[in-house]
Amino acid sequence: MIEPSIALYGESFNKVNTSLDEMLNKAHVRYAMLVDRKGFVLAHKEALWAPKPPALDSIATLIAGNAAATSALAKLLGERRFNELVHQGERIGLYVEEIQTEALLVVIFDETAPIGRVKLYAKTAIKDISEIIENLEPMPAMDMTLGSDFASSAGALLDDLFKGN
Amino acid sequence: MIEPSIALYGESFNKVNTSLDEMLNKAHVRYAMLVDRKGFVLAHKEALWAPKPPALDSIATLIAGNAAATSALAKLLGERRFNELVHQGERIGLYVEEIQTEALLVVIFDETAPIGRVKLYAKTAIKDISEIIENLEPMPAMDMTLGSDFASSAGALLDDLFKGN
Repeated sequence: MIEPSIALYGESFNKVNTSLDEMLNKAHVRYAMLVDRKGFVLAHKEALWAPKPPALDSIATLIAGNAAATSALAKLLGERRFNELVHQGERIGLYVEEIQTEALLVVIFDETAPIGRVKLYAKTAIKDISEIIENLEPMPAMDMTLGSDFASSAGALLDDLFKGN
Repeated sequence: MIEPSIALYGESFNKVNTSLDEMLNKAHVRYAMLVDRKGFVLAHKEALWAPKPPALDSIATLIAGNAAATSALAKLLGERRFNELVHQGERIGLYVEEIQTEALLVVIFDETAPIGRVKLYAKTAIKDISEIIENLEPMPAMDMTLGSDFASSAGALLDDLFKGN
């Protein structure tokens, strides 16, 4: 099974969301996402004033694919890879920057947000999120053994079932 | 046969080269290329101080491919396509902007050129080149019929050959 390369949960997930929210408000951007290099959306936030977001899952997949595809181009230019991508349309802009090696910060903005401001607050968010990812504890393993508690409660349940009512 | 979608030759070709040269010097960038959407290099210039350029043909192909591939992403965001792309590595940056619908201006720069300056002079070059492309005259058709001139000179040549010396 393909799984996200980073397991964000609990406290770390909340911290990432807070950081995305802060950037969203300060930079006045529409949507912000944390995506892993396989294209999984790890966290996402939308501005209240922004129109209904497009399919963020599809966007995440295309961006991760595009980031991987441009590495050939980067290598031709003597770079390991591009750590920053800006795609600018007539109204909508897309800013992608890598966080550590595993994740990408994706910011979608419109003409109300100058790219300089987007970059400035994105860098702050990246610094925060980078620290969160570094200090990530491994996902607690699920306890799959059936203990004595389970045995007694299952026994009681079965007793109930066969009591014949 | 796949052919470039724009035929740049003679006076127009020189004008485009002058425009690229001017941008190269003013923005202090390494390489500048005019590429069509199929990936053909229509014109290119390298700065004298820049190291030996990488395979510009391959770069042009990858960039044209990348520009086409990102159109799916643009459509998801409600744009026809992205008219401006910036890829930034640790030292090398790549700036791509469309000229009319047929061509792309590709600028490769390093840390000595701030992106703002690159964009500024790229816009000037785009304005110039856009005008040149608009006023492009169709390629003069090659005259493939054999006229009387050809007949008489070929006759004389054959006479010489068979005179038997």
